[in-house]
Amino acid sequence: MAHSKQTLATAESMAHSQREIAVSEFFLKNRHLLGFDNPRKALLTTVKEAVDNSLDACDEAGILPEISVEIAQTGARRFRVTVLDNGPGIVRAQVPKIFAKLLYGSKFHRLRMSRGQQGIGISAAGMYGQLTTGTATLIQSKIKTGKKAHHIEVQIDTRANKPTILKDEELEWHPQFFTAAPDGTPQLSKEYSQGTCVSIEMEAAYVRGKLSADEYLKQCAIVNPHLCLHYRITVLEAVSTAGTAGAANGNGKGQGAETPANDKKPADAAGAAVAAGAAVAAWITFERGTRDLPKQPLEIKPHPHGVELGMLMQMLKDTTAKTLKSALVNDFSRVSDRAAAEICQRAALDPKARPTHIAHRESEALFKAIGEAKLMRPPTDCLSPIGEEQILAGLKKEITADFYTAVTRSPEVYRGNPFQIEVGIAYAKPGENAEINVEDPVRVLRFANKVPLLYMGGACAMIKAMTGVNWKSYGLAQPRDAVPLGPVVILIHIASVWVPFTSESKEAIAHYPEIIREMTFALQECGRRLSVFLSRRRRQAELERKRNFIEMYLPHLALGLREILALTAKQETQIVNKLHKMLERTHLET
Amino acid sequence: MAHSKQTLATAESMAHSQREIAVSEFFLKNRHLLGFDNPRKALLTTVKEAVDNSLDACDEAGILPEISVEIAQTGARRFRVTVLDNGPGIVRAQVPKIFAKLLYGSKFHRLRMSRGQQGIGISAAGMYGQLTTGTATLIQSKIKTGKKAHHIEVQIDTRANKPTILKDEELEWHPQFFTAAPDGTPQLSKEYSQGTCVSIEMEAAYVRGKLSADEYLKQCAIVNPHLCLHYRITVLEAVSTAGTAGAANGNGKGQGAETPANDKKPADAAGAAVAAGAAVAAWITFERGTRDLPKQPLEIKPHPHGVELGMLMQMLKDTTAKTLKSALVNDFSRVSDRAAAEICQRAALDPKARPTHIAHRESEALFKAIGEAKLMRPPTDCLSPIGEEQILAGLKKEITADFYTAVTRSPEVYRGNPFQIEVGIAYAKPGENAEINVEDPVRVLRFANKVPLLYMGGACAMIKAMTGVNWKSYGLAQPRDAVPLGPVVILIHIASVWVPFTSESKEAIAHYPEIIREMTFALQECGRRLSVFLSRRRRQAELERKRNFIEMYLPHLALGLREILALTAKQETQIVNKLHKMLERTHLET
Repeated sequence: MAHSKQTLATAESMAHSQREIAVSEFFLKNRHLLGFDNPRKALLTTVKEAVDNSLDACDEAGILPEISVEIAQTGARRFRVTVLDNGPGIVRAQVPKIFAKLLYGSKFHRLRMSRGQQGIGISAAGMYGQLTTGTATLIQSKIKTGKKAHHIEVQIDTRANKPTILKDEELEWHPQFFTAAPDGTPQLSKEYSQGTCVSIEMEAAYVRGKLSADEYLKQCAIVNPHLCLHYRITVLEAVSTAGTAGAANGNGKGQGAETPANDKKPADAAGAAVAAGAAVAAWITFERGTRDLPKQPLEIKPHPHGVELGMLMQMLKDTTAKTLKSALVNDFSRVSDRAAAEICQRAALDPKARPTHIAHRESEALFKAIGEAKLMRPPTDCLSPIGEEQILAGLKKEITADFYTAVTRSPEVYRGNPFQIEVGIAYAKPGENAEINVEDPVRVLRFANKVPLLYMGGACAMIKAMTGVNWKSYGLAQPRDAVPLGPVVILIHIASVWVPFTSESKEAIAHYPEIIREMTFALQECGRRLSVFLSRRRRQAELERKRNFIEMYLPHLALGLREILALTAKQETQIVNKLHKMLERTHLET
Repeated sequence: MAHSKQTLATAESMAHSQREIAVSEFFLKNRHLLGFDNPRKALLTTVKEAVDNSLDACDEAGILPEISVEIAQTGARRFRVTVLDNGPGIVRAQVPKIFAKLLYGSKFHRLRMSRGQQGIGISAAGMYGQLTTGTATLIQSKIKTGKKAHHIEVQIDTRANKPTILKDEELEWHPQFFTAAPDGTPQLSKEYSQGTCVSIEMEAAYVRGKLSADEYLKQCAIVNPHLCLHYRITVLEAVSTAGTAGAANGNGKGQGAETPANDKKPADAAGAAVAAGAAVAAWITFERGTRDLPKQPLEIKPHPHGVELGMLMQMLKDTTAKTLKSALVNDFSRVSDRAAAEICQRAALDPKARPTHIAHRESEALFKAIGEAKLMRPPTDCLSPIGEEQILAGLKKEITADFYTAVTRSPEVYRGNPFQIEVGIAYAKPGENAEINVEDPVRVLRFANKVPLLYMGGACAMIKAMTGVNWKSYGLAQPRDAVPLGPVVILIHIASVWVPFTSESKEAIAHYPEIIREMTFALQECGRRLSVFLSRRRRQAELERKRNFIEMYLPHLALGLREILALTAKQETQIVNKLHKMLERTHLET
C-alpha cells in the first residue's frame, strides 16, 4: 500500500512540497545542537542558560547579583529547574518573546562582551521542557518601576517560532515556583525586591560529578566572585527505585505515577513532590568574595579590518551617514577623519559620495583600500577580564594548593574582534589534595566570558593550546600530544565581544590561530612561574636537608667543645649560637 | 568618548534593544557551523551542497544522473563553482527561495531518506559567496514542460532571510556559466535537455588531498555507481604567485588584479579568466558502473515509539482525523485498528474523542499507553542502501586490492527512525597498493545517505565503532583505543530517514548507542571474513612452500629411480606423474 503512494517526482510536484522551515522546528529536530542531547545534559544546559541570563542582566544593570537555583525532582524522570535573580526584571511585553522565541534578544546585534550572545538558550530550554513533558515555561518578573509583578506562562508555537501565552496576570511579587519546604514556604536567605524567576519542568536525569549542574555552579562562583549564589536540589526518594524501573522500561518512556498532570498549578506540583516523599535539602550558599562590581564592558563598533566585502556593502546600504567619509568615521571603530580621507583617496572615491551608491558600484575598490590602510587596532576597553587578583582569589577559595599564579594577557584581535586570554594555575603538594593526583591529567577549568564550559573539551582551542605547550620544561610530566599530568588545576578564560564557539550549545572554542597563540603564551608564562616555584622548592628541600644535618650534629659538637675547653653553660650557648649562624651562612647561602 | 555612552541598563532600556535575529544573520556570523570555516573547506562544502541537491533531484525524478562540476579560479583568492545536472529542473517561482533563503526546502518535513535534509546548504554557499565577493548566485534551470529556460540571479537579504532577485529572464537553455574553452564554448560530453545549473563565486582556496573536492567527488562516484560525473578544475597560472602574495598581504585581503568586477556578466567573467591566462584543464569523467537506478526510498510516518510527549500533543492538534482512533491509525506508522483500540483502552480514553481535546487534557495518559503498547517495528522499505554488490563494485573500481567483502545489515531503529548500516572492506597485499601501507592506520571512507563525509572523523560514531572492535582477533594490528593499522580500506555507510549529525555542516554522526552497535556488528562480520581470508592465505603460502619442495626434489628422485630401475623415458614420465599426484595428496590435503 505504501508503495503505491510513491510516484516519481517532477519539478512541479517538488514545488508543491517546498516550504519554509521554522528555526524552532529545525532546532526541535536537532536539539542535540543546543545541548539537549540527553536527559543529564539537558538539566545542566537549562541551569546554565538561566543563570547566564541572570548574571548578564545584573551586570548590565550594575546590580550585585544574588541568584537562587533549585533543581527539584517531580517524577521518575522529571525535574523542575527554578532560577530566581535580583536583576532589573523584564518588562511585560518582552517576556513571552524572550522565553518562547528562538533567535530573539538584545545581545546578538552588538559587539559587547556578555555571556549570552545568540538569543536561543532559555527559549530552547523551555522548548525542550515542552517537548518532553508538555508543560509551559513559568515566569514571574518585577521591574523597579512596577508596583506588582507579572506572572506569565508561555509555550513556544514551534511551527511559527512564536510564543503562545497561556497565562498573563499581575500579582504580588513573591517568587513561588520553589518547592515548598515542609512548613509551606520557600526558604531563601534574602529578600528580593525586584528580579526575575523562571521555572521549567523537563525530562532529565541528575548525576553528580564533573558534568553536573553542581560543578557548573561551583565554577561559576570561582570566576564571578561578586555573585552570591544559593543552591538546592530536591530528590524524590519515593521514586528513586521507580525511576530506575522506568528507565529500564523499553523505550525509556516509563513515567512515574508521581508525575503531576499538566494543568496543575505550579504550587500544587511542588506540593505533590513533597507529598510523594521529597527530600528537601537545605540551601547551600556560595558567599560572594567581593562586593566590587566587575568593570562594565563597553559596546564597540566593527573594526574595518575584520569586515568582509559583503558585510561592508551591507553596512554602506544601511548607514544613516550622508557621505562615504562620515560613514567610515561613524560606523566603524578606529577610523579617524584623516584615515577616512586617505582610504577614499586610495580607492579613488569621492569622500562626499553617497554611501548607498558606493555599496552597489565601487565597494570592491573601497574594500581593497581599507585592507591596505594602516589603522589602530580595535579598542580593548570593551573587555572585562576576571583579573589576576580575582582569579587567584577564586582558585584559593575553591582549591587547596600550595602554589597559585595567574596571568591576564593584553587584549588581542581575531577577525576584527578583540579578545583577551587569562590563565591561572594552582599546584598542590603531591598527596595533599585528594582531588588532584600526580599520575592524573591536570584538571582544566575552561571559561568563556565568565561562563564555565564543561563539555566538548576535546574540540576546544583551550585543550589544543594546552597540549601544544612543552610542560616537561616546566617540571610536569606530559604524554605525547596530551595535557600534562600532575596535582595541578589550570584555569583558562577567554573574554571577547564575540566568542567563536564550535556549536550553538557553546561548549568549545573554535581553533582560531590568533586565539590559540595567546592561550599558549599565557600558559607558558604560568608554566615558567610554576617552574621557578618547583625549582625553588627543590632547592629548599635541599636546604632543609642540610639544616637538619646541622641541627643533628651541633649539640654533639658543642658537648665535645665544652669538655675540651671547659666552658660554662653560658659560654657553650654562645658558641653554639655562633657556630649555628656561621654554618648556616656557609652552607645555606651558597 | 565611547565611555560616556555607556550607562547602566534598566528593564525599560533593555526592552528597547531586544529584537528578532534572522536565521541568516545568525548563520552569517556563525558560518563555521555550516562548513564555511576557512577558504579551503568553503570550496568543498559548496561543491558538496550543489552535487547533493542534484543527486537528490535526479533520484526523486527517476532520472539517471549526469552531473558536471567545474571549479574555476577567477582571482588570487577567488573561485567560481559551477554545477550542472540533468535533473527535473526547478519551477521558476521556487528558484529564489531555494537558492537564497535558509531553512527552505522539501526534505525537512518528511521522513524520507535523502542527502539533503535541512534546507540550508546551497543558500548558505550562496550567502558565503555574497559575503566574501559581493556577487550573486547565478541559476539557470529548464523544466521538462517549459519551452525556454529561466535565468535568475539572486542574493540573500540577510536581515530578513529573503531572496533579493537581481535578474529574472527567459532564454534558450544553454548552460553558460562554465569557463569557455579556448574556442569559446564549454565542452561537455553530453547534451542536457533539461536540468539545473548553479554557479557561485567565492573566496576560496584549492588544495589537493584527502579533504578536497576531488576526493569528495571520487568517493561520490564509489557509492553512486549510477552517476556519470564530469569534473574540471581551472587554475589561473598568472595569479598563482600573485595569489600567494595576496594571502601574505596582512589581513588576507589582497585581491588579485584579475578579479572581475561585480556587474560583469558571467560569460565575461569566464572570458576574463581565460584572458588572464587560465589553464583550462580537460574534463575528467567518472563513468557510471550501472544504468540501474537505486531503489526509490519511501516516505514513512513517525513511529509512535519515537514520538515524544510534546510532539504527540502537536500531532493531535494538527491532525485532520476526526477521532482519536483514526488519528492514531492514519498519522503514525504501524498502528493497526486493533492496536489503536488497545491504546485507547489502556489510556481509558474514548476512541471517538476529538483529537484536539485529547491534546490538551489527556495526552499524558495516551503517551503512557502508547509507550506500553506492543507495536511492530517501523517499516524499513523506506531505506535505499547501496547494497553489498554495489559496494564491492565501487571498491573494486577505485581501490586495487586482493580481497574485498561487504555487509549490508538489516534495518534497525533509533528514536523511532529506521536506519541501516553497511560496511565494505578492501585488503591489499602488503606493498602492492602504494596508497595504503601496512604501518598506517586503515583508510576509512565514511558515508551518510550516500554522501561522503570528509571532516570531523574524530567526532563521528563510525570511528567510535571502529576503535571499539578488537581487530587483533581478525589479524590486524591495532593501537589501544585507535583504528586498526594495515593495507586496508574500510567503507561505512549509514542510510536513514533522518541522519543524526553532530552539526549543521553534516560531517559526523552523533553517538547513538543503537547506531554504534549496528556499526560494530557490521565491522565484526567483515572482520571475520577478512580473518578467514588472511588465514586461508597463510595456509596457501604454506602449501605453496610444500609444493615448491616437491617440484624441486621430484626430478632428482626421478633421475635416481630411472638409473636404479633402468626405466624408459615414457615409464619415467609415468612414474613421475604418479609420484607427483601421490605426494600432493599426502602433503597438501592434510
